[in-house]
Amino acid sequence: MSVDRLIDAIDAKKNPTVLGLDPQPEHIPPDILEKYIAERGNTLSALCGAYEAYITALIDTLYDIIPAVKLQSACYEALGPEGMDVFLRGIQAARARGLYVIADAKRGDIGSTSRAYSAAFLGRTELNGTPLPVFDADALTVNPYLGSDNLAPFLKDCETYDKMIFVLCKTSNPSAVEVQEQTVGDRPLYRVIARQISDAGRHLAGRYGYLSTGIVAGATQPESIRQLRSLHPELFFLVPGYGAQGGTAADLAAAFDKNGRGAIVNNSRGIGCAWQKTGKPFVDAARDAAIAMRNDLREAL
Amino acid sequence: MSVDRLIDAIDAKKNPTVLGLDPQPEHIPPDILEKYIAERGNTLSALCGAYEAYITALIDTLYDIIPAVKLQSACYEALGPEGMDVFLRGIQAARARGLYVIADAKRGDIGSTSRAYSAAFLGRTELNGTPLPVFDADALTVNPYLGSDNLAPFLKDCETYDKMIFVLCKTSNPSAVEVQEQTVGDRPLYRVIARQISDAGRHLAGRYGYLSTGIVAGATQPESIRQLRSLHPELFFLVPGYGAQGGTAADLAAAFDKNGRGAIVNNSRGIGCAWQKTGKPFVDAARDAAIAMRNDLREAL
Repeated sequence: MSVDRLIDAIDAKKNPTVLGLDPQPEHIPPDILEKYIAERGNTLSALCGAYEAYITALIDTLYDIIPAVKLQSACYEALGPEGMDVFLRGIQAARARGLYVIADAKRGDIGSTSRAYSAAFLGRTELNGTPLPVFDADALTVNPYLGSDNLAPFLKDCETYDKMIFVLCKTSNPSAVEVQEQTVGDRPLYRVIARQISDAGRHLAGRYGYLSTGIVAGATQPESIRQLRSLHPELFFLVPGYGAQGGTAADLAAAFDKNGRGAIVNNSRGIGCAWQKTGKPFVDAARDAAIAMRNDLREAL
Repeated sequence: MSVDRLIDAIDAKKNPTVLGLDPQPEHIPPDILEKYIAERGNTLSALCGAYEAYITALIDTLYDIIPAVKLQSACYEALGPEGMDVFLRGIQAARARGLYVIADAKRGDIGSTSRAYSAAFLGRTELNGTPLPVFDADALTVNPYLGSDNLAPFLKDCETYDKMIFVLCKTSNPSAVEVQEQTVGDRPLYRVIARQISDAGRHLAGRYGYLSTGIVAGATQPESIRQLRSLHPELFFLVPGYGAQGGTAADLAAAFDKNGRGAIVNNSRGIGCAWQKTGKPFVDAARDAAIAMRNDLREAL
């Protein structure tokens, strides 16, 4: 089961951190950015070169202490087709370093379209019976708004190709309440969603009791994390919102079970932009920040 | 206003049809597919060549009778970065033919990520103060699950670059009920969403009374379309589900106002795969089907 590979990777590094590779132009250290602008001008291609150098350096610096990376698709799409090349090579570079790779693309559609998304990120595109891998990540974030028609193709690829999905449940942004906390019967909508995801993944249980259908549950809502953990001991959590978005290790301790398992905590800017707060070279600042986060999480658990 | 450009294009052709360019391997006429497989083998690149030939032929054959196209991003993502090149060139080919272009990517995220998606599809990616267009469609489909934090960047680009969004409200798939029809207070969730979209786009009203924040409302739910139209005379509808998914012209007549405006109806396979049901060359079959649909809609309105 894909969720077991993720848990084993976390256990091996004793670190439930996922490094977010979500580059924006202002995240890139000036020396890297200027090198590519000098070569390619103020173009999308210059940003592509800079993003690739930046994420590759982060992967190479941190792969021995971090079990997983999460690439935010939007950042690469914002550079067009060449950006998607950087996204693909980023996934490949991380997998080559033994990292578990989450494609954070929050896809959701219906029927054959959902199948195409699943083929893109988890499965294979078939031509004349030849299965062709595309981005081929270990896991994908998925949006639940279209219901189980959307989920079905992803679940199938989770089974066939040993992959995992994380379905948006309770996100870390302030306006999450506008839809996710609307009351349905006696419960907020996000709890209806969590139940649906749990039912949908029942056949994808791994040896630690977790399913390969996890959820996204933001660190900025400790009370909802606590509730979801107690209601759903079978759901693995991807937790955004630590650091830059205001969530603390104490807030998210409730995401973990009594063995210190059950969640992985994302940090993007807190690690990749640590150079902005220190005088150190960017890779050294990133490593210091990643170690500090690991220790912070270890202490809270 | 972007919505006015769309309405003018529909009026000029007297045809509220949007041609869905949602290729899948099995949609491509064998002679096209075989040509590229002969050149490039059973590869993603062969599919890229075939998809581009296929959608370009459809655009060139239909641009004089159809006002708009909708490119389903998933189909191109399923071919990897080179597929996104085909997606980009498809958008450019359609715009060069004077067509209104909807990128159907159903994106939704938060904060800076949502900004990156909006830059990718509607706005610009900035580097050193230089605004760089990326896919640059006229409109984008958007997922509402993350609330107004997600919408804000898209709304800003709608204003700055004269673009439009269509937010998923009531989709055409059977399992749409599982989330979208959950009862919130006295209403189904999709009506809460419709109200939010309407409020969010109040400042984007065009001269026909419609906002540049539209909604997706499936043809397979005539009763909910009727309700949404009567509650929201200001919301323009993108209507999937005609033809292949079972919606008829009579079902969706209620999507239109008394002047025959207010909606555009998508058809993908019914036009692009019409060749499978006739002995005719694929472009001729597509043209026949597009004209038949136009006449069917004209009659129903």
